[in-house]
Amino acid sequence: MKFTLAQEFMAEVLGTMVLILFGVGVVAMVVIFAATDPAVPGQVVNGGYTNITLGWGFGVLMGIFVAGTISGAHLNPAVTVALAATGRFPWSKVLPYIAAQLVGAFLGAAIVFAVYSARWVQFDPDLARTAGVFSTFPAVPGFWPGFIDQVVGTALLVGLILAIGDKLNNPAGAAWGGLAVAFVVMAIGMSFGGMHGYAINPARDLGPRLFSLVAGFQNTGFSNGVWLVPVIGPLVGGVLGAFIYDFFIGRPLARAGEAVVGEQGVDPAYNLDQR
Amino acid sequence: MKFTLAQEFMAEVLGTMVLILFGVGVVAMVVIFAATDPAVPGQVVNGGYTNITLGWGFGVLMGIFVAGTISGAHLNPAVTVALAATGRFPWSKVLPYIAAQLVGAFLGAAIVFAVYSARWVQFDPDLARTAGVFSTFPAVPGFWPGFIDQVVGTALLVGLILAIGDKLNNPAGAAWGGLAVAFVVMAIGMSFGGMHGYAINPARDLGPRLFSLVAGFQNTGFSNGVWLVPVIGPLVGGVLGAFIYDFFIGRPLARAGEAVVGEQGVDPAYNLDQR
Amino acid sequence: MKFTLAQEFMAEVLGTMVLILFGVGVVAMVVIFAATDPAVPGQVVNGGYTNITLGWGFGVLMGIFVAGTISGAHLNPAVTVALAATGRFPWSKVLPYIAAQLVGAFLGAAIVFAVYSARWVQFDPDLARTAGVFSTFPAVPGFWPGFIDQVVGTALLVGLILAIGDKLNNPAGAAWGGLAVAFVVMAIGMSFGGMHGYAINPARDLGPRLFSLVAGFQNTGFSNGVWLVPVIGPLVGGVLGAFIYDFFIGRPLARAGEAVVGEQGVDPAYNLDQR
Amino acid sequence: MKFTLAQEFMAEVLGTMVLILFGVGVVAMVVIFAATDPAVPGQVVNGGYTNITLGWGFGVLMGIFVAGTISGAHLNPAVTVALAATGRFPWSKVLPYIAAQLVGAFLGAAIVFAVYSARWVQFDPDLARTAGVFSTFPAVPGFWPGFIDQVVGTALLVGLILAIGDKLNNPAGAAWGGLAVAFVVMAIGMSFGGMHGYAINPARDLGPRLFSLVAGFQNTGFSNGVWLVPVIGPLVGGVLGAFIYDFFIGRPLARAGEAVVGEQGVDPAYNLDQR
Repeated sequence: MKFTLAQEFMAEVLGTMVLILFGVGVVAMVVIFAATDPAVPGQVVNGGYTNITLGWGFGVLMGIFVAGTISGAHLNPAVTVALAATGRFPWSKVLPYIAAQLVGAFLGAAIVFAVYSARWVQFDPDLARTAGVFSTFPAVPGFWPGFIDQVVGTALLVGLILAIGDKLNNPAGAAWGGLAVAFVVMAIGMSFGGMHGYAINPARDLGPRLFSLVAGFQNTGFSNGVWLVPVIGPLVGGVLGAFIYDFFIGRPLARAGEAVVGEQGVDPAYNLDQR
Repeated sequence: MKFTLAQEFMAEVLGTMVLILFGVGVVAMVVIFAATDPAVPGQVVNGGYTNITLGWGFGVLMGIFVAGTISGAHLNPAVTVALAATGRFPWSKVLPYIAAQLVGAFLGAAIVFAVYSARWVQFDPDLARTAGVFSTFPAVPGFWPGFIDQVVGTALLVGLILAIGDKLNNPAGAAWGGLAVAFVVMAIGMSFGGMHGYAINPARDLGPRLFSLVAGFQNTGFSNGVWLVPVIGPLVGGVLGAFIYDFFIGRPLARAGEAVVGEQGVDPAYNLDQR
Repeated sequence: MKFTLAQEFMAEVLGTMVLILFGVGVVAMVVIFAATDPAVPGQVVNGGYTNITLGWGFGVLMGIFVAGTISGAHLNPAVTVALAATGRFPWSKVLPYIAAQLVGAFLGAAIVFAVYSARWVQFDPDLARTAGVFSTFPAVPGFWPGFIDQVVGTALLVGLILAIGDKLNNPAGAAWGGLAVAFVVMAIGMSFGGMHGYAINPARDLGPRLFSLVAGFQNTGFSNGVWLVPVIGPLVGGVLGAFIYDFFIGRPLARAGEAVVGEQGVDPAYNLDQR
Repeated sequence: MKFTLAQEFMAEVLGTMVLILFGVGVVAMVVIFAATDPAVPGQVVNGGYTNITLGWGFGVLMGIFVAGTISGAHLNPAVTVALAATGRFPWSKVLPYIAAQLVGAFLGAAIVFAVYSARWVQFDPDLARTAGVFSTFPAVPGFWPGFIDQVVGTALLVGLILAIGDKLNNPAGAAWGGLAVAFVVMAIGMSFGGMHGYAINPARDLGPRLFSLVAGFQNTGFSNGVWLVPVIGPLVGGVLGAFIYDFFIGRPLARAGEAVVGEQGVDPAYNLDQR
């Protein structure tokens, strides 16, 4: 199927918005409902970090359900740039896609705030200590710890997306490719969420951070350069991961001969090669 | 396959009953077994909010296994009305389906109470503080916070159900469509469970709330209008989500041409288009 | 494929043993490693009730992987009897299957104890308070609360197994039928684990309970009749669930005509109709 | 498809590295971010043991996505040796595969340390009490408790991998064979993680342990023989599990006749028979 750039743009907006609705939503749940429920002694009501990691993964799955067929559901500038850098996506569409992802992420953050505002003003009336619901912050001060973390995390994300979407590598598993990508995101959260909140996506981080600035939150990370790390790191890491995948796995597979399986086994909902 | 309305009615009763058995059951577990197990120091024995979100999702999956083929497993008036409003389901069946869903939800709540009554009378002898096991209550007083929450949550639910069930959008993934819908429900619980307990389903909320009234619980939410929010909000949100899906994704896909895949790839267990 | 009764017997022994290895194993983990890890402040090291519910579900999946093709992986006398009572399984094989399940469950419990014995004697040197690792005990004294719980839980288990395994009801989902059954068991644990530990399987309960008696544990539940509830309740509930499924779903589907899908869509790993 | 041994070696390095990145990464998260988040009262920020078990399972899935097609994704000397011992893999490739697995595991551990080093030096400046992030240690002193645990755990791992990868046993489920193996690893972690940290893989344990020695950690387990248990135990257990599978399940299936399903149903992403 062939779509106009406007249709792809809107799908990418909607898909990224849905990703952020679930992702920022689950962080809001855990942070601003942090107090234990008085009706349930000793019981935290928000699911904790396990739910955060599951929730972001499900958010990616939902974004893929929404945008997978029309725009390919990149939902992430690091994915878009890495696909372009390896010849899988036209450079001419990179900026429109990134713009769509930023718009979608901003809108998603705004809707989460609208949903939770009545509770938010109870929990943090000055909006002084909950900007971290929207965007990521370093566990240890300085540029390099967060940067290394973001490079490694996004290299894993993009390398594994290519592994999952490569017809030569994963023909039969393509039927659940979107779910596999969601598992990648859950796994990165579980294993690489500590140093910089696993942004691994410049739009996921910058869009909601811009919203938090506009909405009047304090300590949004713009004054001290914190915002740069989850923008630059993922772009570098994504390209790195794509080249590592292609060098060690993708090219040997392509050289090993023609496709073993035909076209019919490929999942249109998450086929990175269909363009 | 063709079924009588009576068969569809009974399947919808049974499917919604099974949904409520698991959903209200897991809340009962977490609330009335809230005390830590004395044999397991420091260990909460009920799984907490993570289990609540997983349990409701599994409940939807089980309801789909039961009713998916015969009635389509709406299990939710917000789904039924949204399908009718977008021309996917005949208006003439809407009221019987909603009646079936309410009956099933009431029965499910009654069976959960029967199973747990011996423990319930120990934990809350006056039935004064556990009506929240059956139905949802606002975290912040007032109509609008809960209403916005229910509209957003149900728009996500119905929009994503359409995305999952649309043959043009998700052909290969249809084999696990019921599981995908369960993941949607888990994700909404994780990300939008705070403001009003993610009813996102008028029958899921009103049926068990009616049972709690009949069974003699106090503070059931009928006296102060709380019961209205999870009835009206989901109906509005479901239609909204369906129209957003159709406008941005469904129509561009339909215009882009004929189906790429044939009929054989479609999952009868959760095919919204088969009627 | 056709197998001898001896091959089926051994597969059923091995499958039930694997189920119990994982199931009793995860309870052992949570109970006898209940203390927090001194190296990890504030951190419980055993996963709690969420892991118990996931672990038993995975145990069923693993038992199905082992025994599904050869014996059908009943792993549970309540399943065997319900299949026989509804004409899906020959009565002549019922007793050998139940014997195999009891032997496998006893062996699984013995291996778990062998693995954990060095820790067990530290945690409970008199074997006086951990018989609950092996078998289930009521939360509230008396026969009826546990009996009702076991009937409802096993009716859900068997009814949903039939829904998942019925080619007319769930053709496309059959590829992951074993996983679907695992989700059923996880869901029953999350929603109906409080009153009697969701035995829902006479062999799962009686086999390990017999081992706990032989191994010298105290308070094994044999002296006060506790052992009878998770034996009788599941047998009654399983037959009840099978008849409810057949009456409301199975028969309408059969009457609605011939199979829509052919034989090739059926999963040999969990096909209840293949015999 | 046919690959050179060098290509297989590199795929096995990369796959095992990815496994260890996620596996050691999630343990690092739980251990060195053990303090509760000051912004989230009462809330542990690392996901606890549930996340550890999920994270290692996802790590295996990711390693299979990377290396499954080219090298078969053994990722584990116990798997390689068991496959060779049962005639499924040439003995001539066993040493190269094990070398690749050790190299990959060492590299993965080094990258995790690079990512987390800024936080590590805060949490454990002397590197005196966190060697357990990299490798496993016994809960109870002595050789036999850990050895029995490793034999049982790895017998389950390898026996179930054979059950999942056997075309005669699991034809339709092959589409998600990699995920099934991930579930096996999650389940072993949940049920058999207490006695010796469920190494069940000599490379997973020895590679990172060597890194911890090189990096200057104290108490690495080399001085007291602890390192031997998770090397010998898994090798013994893997062969044992493979023979048990073949004796009770694999051979009866092979004798029962020709394959019921054709070649096309087999998942190239995790087909143990394709070599």
